[in-house]
Amino acid sequence: MTDHFFEGAEKLLEIWFGTSSENKLTARNDLRHIPRDVFEDVLNLVNCKVLKYAQSKDIDTYVLSESSAFVFKTHIILKTCGATTLLAAVQPLISLAHEYAGFDTVDQIFYSRRKFLRPDLQKDPHTNFEHEVSYLNSLCGEGCSYVLGRTNLDCWYLYTLDKSCGSKRSDQTLEVIMTDLDPEIMKIFYQDNTTSAADATEKAGIDKIFPDAKIYDYLFEPCGYSMNGLMSDDHYFTIHVTPEPDFSYVSFETNVPYSLFDGLIRKVVELFNPGKFVTTIFRSSTLNSLDTNRKYFHYTNYSRVDHHIICLTDHDLLYSYYKKTLR
Amino acid sequence: MTDHFFEGAEKLLEIWFGTSSENKLTARNDLRHIPRDVFEDVLNLVNCKVLKYAQSKDIDTYVLSESSAFVFKTHIILKTCGATTLLAAVQPLISLAHEYAGFDTVDQIFYSRRKFLRPDLQKDPHTNFEHEVSYLNSLCGEGCSYVLGRTNLDCWYLYTLDKSCGSKRSDQTLEVIMTDLDPEIMKIFYQDNTTSAADATEKAGIDKIFPDAKIYDYLFEPCGYSMNGLMSDDHYFTIHVTPEPDFSYVSFETNVPYSLFDGLIRKVVELFNPGKFVTTIFRSSTLNSLDTNRKYFHYTNYSRVDHHIICLTDHDLLYSYYKKTLR
Repeated sequence: MTDHFFEGAEKLLEIWFGTSSENKLTARNDLRHIPRDVFEDVLNLVNCKVLKYAQSKDIDTYVLSESSAFVFKTHIILKTCGATTLLAAVQPLISLAHEYAGFDTVDQIFYSRRKFLRPDLQKDPHTNFEHEVSYLNSLCGEGCSYVLGRTNLDCWYLYTLDKSCGSKRSDQTLEVIMTDLDPEIMKIFYQDNTTSAADATEKAGIDKIFPDAKIYDYLFEPCGYSMNGLMSDDHYFTIHVTPEPDFSYVSFETNVPYSLFDGLIRKVVELFNPGKFVTTIFRSSTLNSLDTNRKYFHYTNYSRVDHHIICLTDHDLLYSYYKKTLR
Repeated sequence: MTDHFFEGAEKLLEIWFGTSSENKLTARNDLRHIPRDVFEDVLNLVNCKVLKYAQSKDIDTYVLSESSAFVFKTHIILKTCGATTLLAAVQPLISLAHEYAGFDTVDQIFYSRRKFLRPDLQKDPHTNFEHEVSYLNSLCGEGCSYVLGRTNLDCWYLYTLDKSCGSKRSDQTLEVIMTDLDPEIMKIFYQDNTTSAADATEKAGIDKIFPDAKIYDYLFEPCGYSMNGLMSDDHYFTIHVTPEPDFSYVSFETNVPYSLFDGLIRKVVELFNPGKFVTTIFRSSTLNSLDTNRKYFHYTNYSRVDHHIICLTDHDLLYSYYKKTLR
């Protein structure tokens, strides 16, 4: 029995900024004006180092020693695993958004994570969700906290603000969180077996998910893998792999259109062959109908153990938990 | 400032029994064979006294010093408020169902409750939901526990077993849990203002909800009210009122057909005029569509703050939280 452990499960923070003035946003209102060294100071604060950095027309992207960051014009996504203290970034980010980009309001915050395998190894306030909620409430006023899934099995926590940001946040997000992964596939993500990050990306078939994406990938020593992919139209995807058999974990995240989600889940599950996986889907609630959720999102060899839907102010959130029925 | 407090929020337990044999149920398999005095011993165990008892063709019903009990052929509903220790009834009920009715399997359990106003006044394991889940798991094997609503506001807890009971449990339940009630209406439920339970039932308009129901009601000294109503086709309804302004609480529950729920919610909310209310709806998931939930269940003067849907093995569970927009 080894003491070696790594918490693959990421803390995921998304903050949307705005201005209190009635005027349209100007060129000044752009989070990418925050100087890179100043932004990296915030990343250091939560115990992440920048490994790769790239830009597209719409996105600045960072591959981090612990996961990823994406900076858009009016919102920022920060995703960190291990024992990082992600919430320590909230107040500094709000200050920097004001100082360098003229944003004086927080339009929306989404903070979410899966239940940790080892909460005892986290640092305060991440040791439990109640502490995280208290911390966020102390910064943002009274938000809304939810638990999806079975509290006594795997579950997934969400904190968000009780406000509408109107049409400003008209996008969608898919996360696929996989555990109990195929050990043969996980071998790809060890430096002993694979010569480079690009090699891992290709062997695992990650380059086939979005063939037109620009991929920024990193293979850790002795094992582990991270990648950010940038596509057109401010779309991205990101994958993080913790391959150790005792606590294997893979996450996939993207903001491409909702209509692609079902096929993407199928593809990602086929590539990684997990024993269990969770999908979380945020989509605009402009649709009048919640229909078809029962029928869609079924996958061969997996049974859907839990299926929850939460209607938030502007979004529907779908949470599903799947377990392999055949091995 | 007074120390007087009463926890109106009920613990609600529903247990469905079956037999391990392939044969059809016989006349012996009927929970109503449990002798009344033996059943009352179980009620005493959870700190409830029987105030009224009645029978219909399909149901034995009890009005209790702390809420209600309903005994059907193959299932039992026990609902207790205050600091009662409802879960202490689970094991005795399983034994009695075996001894007197030949049931040797538990087909399904639903245990639910709203977040208590004063969990510190509860007795173990009811002081927190995790303890309740551990206790139930110790009796029933690994079940499923869920939290609906905002964990940092009002929320509602559910424990159920991870199994299908097939067509055996083909019914539906509506609960309307109201708080912050209209003080003028609450005055009806004080003995100083109202001469009898029947008087309260009529003044409050409870007799108009199901005009054909047989009503068994009780007005407490100095205040408080409980009623069970029996209709045809094994349908029931039950209302419990804690009228004190500092912690006013009213619950309504019924198992009439789902198609009546929307109108019933409207009616009940009109009668009691709560500042906030929660609805929980269990219905068979044989319907292919989850459509229309966004459109239905909207009420004048109330905004729906939360709306959750959980797909359980055989049932959909809809949770909604409403807050008054006008006073």
